[in-house]
Amino acid sequence: MALKKFNAGDFESWERFYRANFFNSAGGFKSLNLIGTRSSTGITNLGLFFSVIHVGANPPFLGVLFRPHTVARHTLENILDTGFFTVNAVQLDMLPQAHQASAKYDKDESEFTAVGLREFYSSDFPVPYVEESRIKLGCRFVEKHEIKANATLLLVGKIEECWVDSEALLEDGFIDHSKVNGITVNGLDTYYTAMLEKRYKYARPGQNVEEK
Amino acid sequence: MALKKFNAGDFESWERFYRANFFNSAGGFKSLNLIGTRSSTGITNLGLFFSVIHVGANPPFLGVLFRPHTVARHTLENILDTGFFTVNAVQLDMLPQAHQASAKYDKDESEFTAVGLREFYSSDFPVPYVEESRIKLGCRFVEKHEIKANATLLLVGKIEECWVDSEALLEDGFIDHSKVNGITVNGLDTYYTAMLEKRYKYARPGQNVEEK
Repeated sequence: MALKKFNAGDFESWERFYRANFFNSAGGFKSLNLIGTRSSTGITNLGLFFSVIHVGANPPFLGVLFRPHTVARHTLENILDTGFFTVNAVQLDMLPQAHQASAKYDKDESEFTAVGLREFYSSDFPVPYVEESRIKLGCRFVEKHEIKANATLLLVGKIEECWVDSEALLEDGFIDHSKVNGITVNGLDTYYTAMLEKRYKYARPGQNVEEK
Repeated sequence: MALKKFNAGDFESWERFYRANFFNSAGGFKSLNLIGTRSSTGITNLGLFFSVIHVGANPPFLGVLFRPHTVARHTLENILDTGFFTVNAVQLDMLPQAHQASAKYDKDESEFTAVGLREFYSSDFPVPYVEESRIKLGCRFVEKHEIKANATLLLVGKIEECWVDSEALLEDGFIDHSKVNGITVNGLDTYYTAMLEKRYKYARPGQNVEEK
């Protein structure tokens, strides 16, 4: 292998899109989720995110990072206005519609209609899920943190209900997204399916790595 | 498809490991990185993380979420003590060693030696990279946020230098981790390689999704 070294001087010299591609992909593969919300006036919204992270299991929390709120951010505004959002995993058969949901639609137009995905409502939950998604999480907003370095925002949500395809849910609670052709993303626009390599047992010092 | 619904009552009724598997995998595929640090007394350390997120490109920032600091967290302590860390992407040929680095070693034992990965030092950087990793990022700690809901910690680092394999770096700045057999993880212990499905052009309202 031949590694190239780059430093701050290089980063600054790069053209804007080169730099965006580089740093959006540098950290590796990310989750791909559509976040569903509703505005205070009742317009539904979908946004495509690769910044959903695990925050806790008991009670269950997740986080989503948002770019700075200097321009309209419909998903962010709706969450702060209504307190609820849904996280809907993207699978291969809905990938073109999911990518199209990353386009900048006006706030009075619902991405559900614009991209051709259906709204699904759970009786106990006030904002729409994506019908086509096979792993959906209903979340209540709990806290917000502003990253001082660049004004991005981390929102934390408590997971209040989940809808999971039985094909993906294994007997030990593990939701294997690859069983339903779940998508992973690298960078801003490149989408992959995942091929299982290994499932390992819990690692302990002085023991050899063992497959499950 | 047949989706099963689960709510807060279900979450509480589950056995601890079932719940951990469920919520660690619910949000989808994650990046897999080894974080390299050095303690204030000079002991090197490696930890395995799937919580690295993109925070910004100009200047470049990334974030890492850490579990609560209620027990020893060597990586976290070293970053707060020295101000520096490296983020080293995991590829297929180093996966068993990377998984072994998730075992709880004592602070006076270096995971580099224990798991069999080599330290690599850049002349301009004070903490070790993983020699075997083909995409490595050198970061300076900039800020810390405590998630009040469960005392997890988000650390933000500024990327000061990068070492990237030419095979993975495309002409538009995109680092395609799949070109070097980069690993993505779902849940606590399940590892995948990625198979390219689509690279799409920037989406705009009223236009059809187009491949790049």
